[in-house]
Amino acid sequence: MKRLVIALGGNALGNNAEEQLELVKHTAKTIVDLSQEGYSVIVGHGNGPQVGMINLAMDFASNNGANTPSMPFAECGSMSQGYIGYHLQQAIKNELRRRKIKKNVATVVTQVVVDENDEAFKNLTKPVGMFYTKEDAIKISEEKGFTFVEDSGRGYRRVVASPQPQKIVELETIQELVDNGTIVITVGGGGIPVIEKEDETLEGVAAVIDKDKSSAKLAKDLDAEMLVILTAVDRVCINFNKPNQEELASINLEEASKYIDEGHFAKGSMLPKVEACVDFVQSSTNGKALITSLEKAKEALHGTTGTIICKTTEGFNTSEKLELNA
Amino acid sequence: MKRLVIALGGNALGNNAEEQLELVKHTAKTIVDLSQEGYSVIVGHGNGPQVGMINLAMDFASNNGANTPSMPFAECGSMSQGYIGYHLQQAIKNELRRRKIKKNVATVVTQVVVDENDEAFKNLTKPVGMFYTKEDAIKISEEKGFTFVEDSGRGYRRVVASPQPQKIVELETIQELVDNGTIVITVGGGGIPVIEKEDETLEGVAAVIDKDKSSAKLAKDLDAEMLVILTAVDRVCINFNKPNQEELASINLEEASKYIDEGHFAKGSMLPKVEACVDFVQSSTNGKALITSLEKAKEALHGTTGTIICKTTEGFNTSEKLELNA
Repeated sequence: MKRLVIALGGNALGNNAEEQLELVKHTAKTIVDLSQEGYSVIVGHGNGPQVGMINLAMDFASNNGANTPSMPFAECGSMSQGYIGYHLQQAIKNELRRRKIKKNVATVVTQVVVDENDEAFKNLTKPVGMFYTKEDAIKISEEKGFTFVEDSGRGYRRVVASPQPQKIVELETIQELVDNGTIVITVGGGGIPVIEKEDETLEGVAAVIDKDKSSAKLAKDLDAEMLVILTAVDRVCINFNKPNQEELASINLEEASKYIDEGHFAKGSMLPKVEACVDFVQSSTNGKALITSLEKAKEALHGTTGTIICKTTEGFNTSEKLELNA
Repeated sequence: MKRLVIALGGNALGNNAEEQLELVKHTAKTIVDLSQEGYSVIVGHGNGPQVGMINLAMDFASNNGANTPSMPFAECGSMSQGYIGYHLQQAIKNELRRRKIKKNVATVVTQVVVDENDEAFKNLTKPVGMFYTKEDAIKISEEKGFTFVEDSGRGYRRVVASPQPQKIVELETIQELVDNGTIVITVGGGGIPVIEKEDETLEGVAAVIDKDKSSAKLAKDLDAEMLVILTAVDRVCINFNKPNQEELASINLEEASKYIDEGHFAKGSMLPKVEACVDFVQSSTNGKALITSLEKAKEALHGTTGTIICKTTEGFNTSEKLELNA
C-alpha cells in the first residue's frame, strides 16, 4: 500500500491536556479519512508548546523548592512523545472504532541521530524553557554550561541547537508496523535528538530537530508516495499578505527554488516547510509533497485545494496527476 | 522463540534523569543477557517514583504561578512511559551495539483497559502527587472532585484507584514486534489506565495499575514461557526477617497459596508479586514465573538462585526443570 507521511504542527495540539484531547479528535478524523483513501498513514508531529510546557514546569518546580529534579531537554522531548502520542493514538483508535475499522495504532518512542559536528551546535538559535533574570542566567550558565540569550525584553532564555536529522534510530520498527497495516505515530517533536559516539552508542543532546525535516527524512526512508505537511493555511502563497498575493496549486522543484530565492516564504514559518518538501521530492523517485491545512487535507489529496510540490508539473494538472498516482 | 516477560521495578530506576541513565545501563546488561539466552524479551516496568515526580512538578508549577497547566494523572503516566522508555531503549540498544548484536528495541506507548465498575474505584487506595494542607485539599476536592487522605502526618494527598488490568490495547502491536525479533518495552507503570465506554471508545482515568499484574497479563496474552519479576531480593522468603527465615528455590501453586494464606508475604511488597506469578502460572499451559533480583536474573534463569513458581515441582529439581524448557 502506498505510504503517506503526515507532519502535524505542535501548535495545532493546544496548550493543555483538555485542549489537546479535544483537538486530536479533529486530527484523528483527518488521519482516518486519509487512511480510508487507501494510504498507509504515518504521523509525524511537532511538540513546540508541549515540550516547552514540560521543560518550564520541570525547571520551575526544581528551582522553587518542589524537591523535584531538573530535567534535561532530550528527556523532556521523550515525555512529550509519550503525552502527545497517547492522545493521538487514543483519538485515532476511537475514530477507527466509530467507523468500525479494524486497524492498529501505535506510538513508537523515536530517537533521531544528529551530527555532533553539525554547524547548528556552534550557533544556537532555538529558545527553550523558562525566562530567567540576567543574574540567574549567568549562574546557570556557569553551573551547567547552558547558553542564554535575551529574548524580546522578557528576560533570558536558554538556546539550543537546531541540527539536521541524520538517521531515524527506530526506522525498522516503524517500517515493520507500517507493513503490518498499523497507523504509526513517530518522530514526535522531530525525534529525541541523540548523537552517535565513536563506539556507535547513542547519547541524548539538548537540541530541537525541525519536525518537518524529520518527517521529510522519514518519508524518504519509507519511500513514501506523499509527504503531507499540515499547517494553518490551505495553500502556500507567493507575495503573501501583499495586494498581488497568489495561491499556488502546484509547483515543481524549479519553481520552488525560484520562489525560495525570491524570499516569498517566511523564515521559521513557511520556508522550512517548503524546503522539507523540496528535500523529499528531490530525493524520491515519484514522491510528491503537499502543504495544506488539517481541515482541507482530504480535499487537497483530491487536488481541489492545497499546494503540491513535485518534480515536474508539465503535461497535466494537479488533480489529474493525483488520480494517476492514487 | 520462547518469550520472557520481565517486570522491572520503578524504584530501581532512580529519582532523576542522571540516576536513571546510569541505572538503566545495568538493567540493559541483564536484558541483553536474557536475550542472548535465546529468549524473546519483553520489558514491562513500574513508574512509581517517576510518575510521582512528573505529577508533583506539574501540580507544583501550575499551583505556584509558572503559567503551566495542571496535568491529569493518566497523562502524567504517558509522559513517564516516554521518559523511561527512551532511557531503556537507548541503553538496551547501546548494550546490543557493544556486543555487536543486530536487534531492534522499541518502546510502545501502551494503554491498559480497566473496568469502570472495578471495586477499586469505590475504595481509592493509591496516594499520588504532592502534599496539600487540609484547606487546599478541600478546595481542590470541591473543584475537581478528587479524593484526599491524610498521609502519615505529612499532609493531605490525592488517592486514586488501583484497578485490575483487563485488556492491553496495543497487544497486537507488541506481538508483531516481538515476532519480528524486537525487544519491546511496554505496559510502563502498569499501562496508561483507560476505560472502554459503551460505544467502545477509550478514555483515560486517574488510576494506578499494578505493574506486576499488567506484566502477568501481558505474559499470559503473549503465551510467554516465563514471567520474571525483578525486585530487591534474590529469592522469596517465608518467615521473612524472623530467626526461621527460609529462602524458597521453587514452589508450586499449592505451596504459593498456602504461604499467601499464612501471611508470609508483605502487602504492597512481595504479596502482589507472588499473586501476579500465581495468576500467570495458573492461566498458562507451561509457563513458569521467577522472582529474583536484577543482578541475579541470569543465574536465576539457570536455577542457581531466584524463586521459581510453577504448576508442579514434583519429579525434578529447579535447575533440571529449567534446562528441560530452556
